[in-house]
Amino acid sequence: MVAARADCSRRKKNEEADAVTNDTDPATVERAPRLTKAAVGLVRPVIEGVRPQVDCGRYPAKASIGEPVIVEADIFCDGHDALSCEVRHRPPGARGWTSVAMAPLGNDRWRATFPTKDLGRHRFQVVAVIDRFASWRRDTLVKANDGQDVAVDLALGAQLLTGAAVRAKGVGRRALTAYAEALAVAPRGLETTVAHDPLLSEGAPLRTVADLLQAPELEHLLWRTRDLGAAAVGPELAVFVDPERARFSAWYELFPRSAGMRGGRHGTLADVEARLDEVAAMGFDVVYLPPIHPIGTTNRKGADGGGAARRADPGSPWAIGAREGGHTAIHPELGTEKDLASLLRAARRRGIEVALDVAFQCSPDHPWVREHPSWFRHLPDGSIRYAENPPKRYEDIYPIDFETPQWRELWDELAAVVGYWIDQGITVFRVDNPHTKSLAFWEWLLAEVKAKRPEVIFLAEAFTRPRLMYRLAKIGFTQSYTYFTWRTEKTELQTYLEEITQPPVSDFFQPNFWPNTPDILHKSLQEGGRPAFMQRLILAATLTANYGIYGPAYELGENVPARPAPGKTESEEYMDSEKYEVRQRSRNQPGSLVPLIALLNKIRRENPALQSNGSLHFHPVDNPNLMCYSKSVKEGTGDDNTILVAVNLDPFNEQAGWIDLDLKLLGISYDQNFDVEDLLTGSHYTWRDRSNYVALRPNVMPAHVFRVART
Amino acid sequence: MVAARADCSRRKKNEEADAVTNDTDPATVERAPRLTKAAVGLVRPVIEGVRPQVDCGRYPAKASIGEPVIVEADIFCDGHDALSCEVRHRPPGARGWTSVAMAPLGNDRWRATFPTKDLGRHRFQVVAVIDRFASWRRDTLVKANDGQDVAVDLALGAQLLTGAAVRAKGVGRRALTAYAEALAVAPRGLETTVAHDPLLSEGAPLRTVADLLQAPELEHLLWRTRDLGAAAVGPELAVFVDPERARFSAWYELFPRSAGMRGGRHGTLADVEARLDEVAAMGFDVVYLPPIHPIGTTNRKGADGGGAARRADPGSPWAIGAREGGHTAIHPELGTEKDLASLLRAARRRGIEVALDVAFQCSPDHPWVREHPSWFRHLPDGSIRYAENPPKRYEDIYPIDFETPQWRELWDELAAVVGYWIDQGITVFRVDNPHTKSLAFWEWLLAEVKAKRPEVIFLAEAFTRPRLMYRLAKIGFTQSYTYFTWRTEKTELQTYLEEITQPPVSDFFQPNFWPNTPDILHKSLQEGGRPAFMQRLILAATLTANYGIYGPAYELGENVPARPAPGKTESEEYMDSEKYEVRQRSRNQPGSLVPLIALLNKIRRENPALQSNGSLHFHPVDNPNLMCYSKSVKEGTGDDNTILVAVNLDPFNEQAGWIDLDLKLLGISYDQNFDVEDLLTGSHYTWRDRSNYVALRPNVMPAHVFRVART
Repeated sequence: MVAARADCSRRKKNEEADAVTNDTDPATVERAPRLTKAAVGLVRPVIEGVRPQVDCGRYPAKASIGEPVIVEADIFCDGHDALSCEVRHRPPGARGWTSVAMAPLGNDRWRATFPTKDLGRHRFQVVAVIDRFASWRRDTLVKANDGQDVAVDLALGAQLLTGAAVRAKGVGRRALTAYAEALAVAPRGLETTVAHDPLLSEGAPLRTVADLLQAPELEHLLWRTRDLGAAAVGPELAVFVDPERARFSAWYELFPRSAGMRGGRHGTLADVEARLDEVAAMGFDVVYLPPIHPIGTTNRKGADGGGAARRADPGSPWAIGAREGGHTAIHPELGTEKDLASLLRAARRRGIEVALDVAFQCSPDHPWVREHPSWFRHLPDGSIRYAENPPKRYEDIYPIDFETPQWRELWDELAAVVGYWIDQGITVFRVDNPHTKSLAFWEWLLAEVKAKRPEVIFLAEAFTRPRLMYRLAKIGFTQSYTYFTWRTEKTELQTYLEEITQPPVSDFFQPNFWPNTPDILHKSLQEGGRPAFMQRLILAATLTANYGIYGPAYELGENVPARPAPGKTESEEYMDSEKYEVRQRSRNQPGSLVPLIALLNKIRRENPALQSNGSLHFHPVDNPNLMCYSKSVKEGTGDDNTILVAVNLDPFNEQAGWIDLDLKLLGISYDQNFDVEDLLTGSHYTWRDRSNYVALRPNVMPAHVFRVART
Repeated sequence: MVAARADCSRRKKNEEADAVTNDTDPATVERAPRLTKAAVGLVRPVIEGVRPQVDCGRYPAKASIGEPVIVEADIFCDGHDALSCEVRHRPPGARGWTSVAMAPLGNDRWRATFPTKDLGRHRFQVVAVIDRFASWRRDTLVKANDGQDVAVDLALGAQLLTGAAVRAKGVGRRALTAYAEALAVAPRGLETTVAHDPLLSEGAPLRTVADLLQAPELEHLLWRTRDLGAAAVGPELAVFVDPERARFSAWYELFPRSAGMRGGRHGTLADVEARLDEVAAMGFDVVYLPPIHPIGTTNRKGADGGGAARRADPGSPWAIGAREGGHTAIHPELGTEKDLASLLRAARRRGIEVALDVAFQCSPDHPWVREHPSWFRHLPDGSIRYAENPPKRYEDIYPIDFETPQWRELWDELAAVVGYWIDQGITVFRVDNPHTKSLAFWEWLLAEVKAKRPEVIFLAEAFTRPRLMYRLAKIGFTQSYTYFTWRTEKTELQTYLEEITQPPVSDFFQPNFWPNTPDILHKSLQEGGRPAFMQRLILAATLTANYGIYGPAYELGENVPARPAPGKTESEEYMDSEKYEVRQRSRNQPGSLVPLIALLNKIRRENPALQSNGSLHFHPVDNPNLMCYSKSVKEGTGDDNTILVAVNLDPFNEQAGWIDLDLKLLGISYDQNFDVEDLLTGSHYTWRDRSNYVALRPNVMPAHVFRVART
């Protein structure tokens, strides 16, 4: 006998924080009345399919601060009674629930939204009761219209109002009592004029009983005094509200050791600080640094990771730990904690956050290898197992053994590492290969961190299988790298984007699109030249609200791959990879993409449509090399904004074709002229109706980024 | 910290019934080893998306006895380790779990099936562990192929096998120890020939270590000794296994009072018995009788429900209860309990079950009105509220008030009614308007009944909104009436069928298609004449495995509607409705559909493809009036059978067109001849490849029902 439960969550104890009637705000948002314990046999509404709901409520959905959370549910009951449905929600730390009335969408679906003014875990649940007065009113009006005698019905209505009056206080009680009396003394039916209006002052025009029954004042009084005695209560669910940067960000990855201005010198954090103006001018708001910790010397890899290091080779920053320290130390050649603090201050002045890399693995020289040998796996010959992906071997790296019996101690130490950098002022982390470490650990760690510091952002670098990638998002990673880097054709891009920007995936997964990384120089960039770099940049910057590039390799169009590994014909690694050496470039090269990058980031900042993903829609084009999509911010939010992008996906040839626009989505009437302004070039076009022509030359500008002006 | 839980169910206590190693069956099905309690931090596999799973496991899925249950789940872990996944299942009353190994389907999806030999609630859950030996073997083979030294790896493998030996007993322990020794003494690598084969008798050909590692015998020994110490355990879910008739049945509804052979005489249960041979000859296996209880006289309705009854009017059988008794009494004019027992015996001899109507409502003369006034709603004027659907009034019926404070007593009494008829031998019930009664009550009642009598079938007559209709199926109704009665066009039929015959809906909802009922004479039948009756009959009998007709109105093609209600232009009610009077027909009328009905039911019995719904597939036809679909029983079940139906949906004109067959689904190769035999006419056709032509004349035979012969 579990009729009063909905879905899978256990019924919460019904004794809730005391109701506080919010007398200053007579709208639909108010403190929720007390839920009292009802006999399950008398609970009639059913609540199903509440959303957002990730894996049966096992994980919170994600939301962005300031954006209202849309809650929907299927709610119905036996028979034909009307329902009163509400969403109760509770921001982190709040003492009581606040209620918002839900509105029916048809087909038994109901919706309400609640605001997100605080970061962190907000709880919510759907509550539904029979609306006896609304049911009575509907039936009575129908019977009266049909000419039936409604004297008994009016007496019944008076009973219902008297019952509501008992639950009210002060003015409300007096008003409801007056309404009840008006019904009780109206034996001639609904058209009886009431002797005095319960709410209007003396002298106001008198009204009929039928008018009174439909008065908004009565509606509001009844909502305030609703009886939750036999309420159905949905599962208690959660949304985690992230900072705006979790939803909308532009990342720039650079190797600090390459940031030095003079040839060959090992760059420093101070050099990074000196480059901040350039980064800010390009419009990025996150600068991500690969690991800044001491690098091991044992089995250090040489150029392109190929063989043993020569003396001058600096090693991979991901081979973390040396005599100078481990995950909480800074590589001496990069600088000191003071330099980092200075960098963070300088960045923040420019609206930029510095993201550090969390790579939980060790070089053989890491202090943990000596201090905590049980955190590593020992082989039958007494050696410690190094990383391998057979037949590949990474002798410069020892993976941490998350199956150690000392896992609790290990978890605490790893959490302390993250805590250490948060204390240094870091609020954004890029996590290296989280899918190769314990998922249980991440779930615990992220919960621990976010409970205290909900503003901290974690980007998961998990280029892995879909289920595992999604699981990381569910267990708390804020953003995720994606398959975008390998999706280049129209159909695969559209299919992928539709999957990740719509529920259920978009409820928990926030994509961050990278056209390149230090590990991935995709074939399309190797072969497509500057037009390909432009295309991929524009796609990343406009398809999803979070994107990033690995620079200066990207803006300089570096496209020479490493030699293929033995037995392979291709490589996605960079030639002379920065992972293994210091690389300094002349950044004033002709053909640099810096101006385009700066323009795209400006367009993103100025157009709210590009700052979230939910509205992404693809419009058919009759050419497989042309892709067209729009994003818009809904009307009525004060930020009415629609962006329409057309991209030529072919880096070699001009492509032209007809777009078949979904005009309704763009807010354009059929058979109407409308203006589109290309924000990349400043050109204006007047378009008409749904079919419109575009032609794009990749070597000039492979895309239009139109702002649509509704006329 | 909840990493070891999957989805929403709470982790079950891990101490399970003792493991019993089933030594007689070395296959993949066996008693499951004990699950021991693991530190949550060490549980690495993740189990998500287990199916079948209805509303997060809140309700059991439905299955049919003898049909294996297919369980699937997404299972994966961090990193690259191999997994060992299994489904543990437990039939009703079983003491321990039985395990079946799951096989990977790709993309982290796994599948297993388990058999259903018993009626009732079967439980199951998915369990997954890291397969350390398989992971080790895969990596070691790759490294050996790459020419790397695997001496340390072989020692590691020997450790794993020694660990397995510790968990084994007797012969298994000795064999595993021998395997471990073979690895330990193979320092030269995987191609070392073993000195003696651990499993083969002396004198058998010797094998290499690599051969041994991949021996099925070792595989099986390792499965038997798998370590579930850090297993992930999915939610405990359930499937309710129904009798075959729940899945596959043909219903015939008749009014017993009309079953008399002579003009005007009130029919009896004995008259129904006398008609059983006709019903059996038509091939039906459920005879459903509208309520057989005493009928109230107060406010009794007259002909066509229009006004007050004249003296001779028998009243509606749904106005239940009179001086002679209520829901556990038989209307005296129909006969006695003895007559019912005789009818049931005679029916069962013919393979027919008699279904009674459960209509929980009362006439004003029902004994409950006097004995339990609190079960009805009293109005302010002291009267009892009669049923109404404003502006319509049903003064001959008092609805039961499920919100009575005496609901527990009410529930017990209603359950006693059902129990009473079960004790009389009834195992099939058609429930009248269950959606207008308490859902909590039904959930409780159905659980109570089925716990003791899992063979009992309940058909929900809930012509209501989709969510509510589905909810009734979830809470335990075996079958449901559907919207088929109103779906006549190709697109709406296909869309609806695809919704209800595929998961998630098909996991809990079993449709029963009725082309007519005593309440519904659809416009298409009113206007389409005999061809429409043939079309709708063929659709109902072949689209879903459960169907029924209200006869003899259907086989006689009765198509005259009642006069429209005031203000309406159409009526779906029958003229001279049997609901309000005794109707006797000459059943030997020319044009009777009896031969077609008998043939269709024969075809259904002889073709297993028509006995379930999951394989239903629509094939495109280039004519909107022609619909084509197939059903098949999969190869390898011993019942290889494919039925292909083409129906002309236009009752007035011949329609012809080209079908574009999905040949793969039919088991036909491209560019191949195949034979189709029309089971309605006996005609054979040789078809070729995917495009084939049909032409159907509605007044001759509006459909082909082909059996496809694969050559």
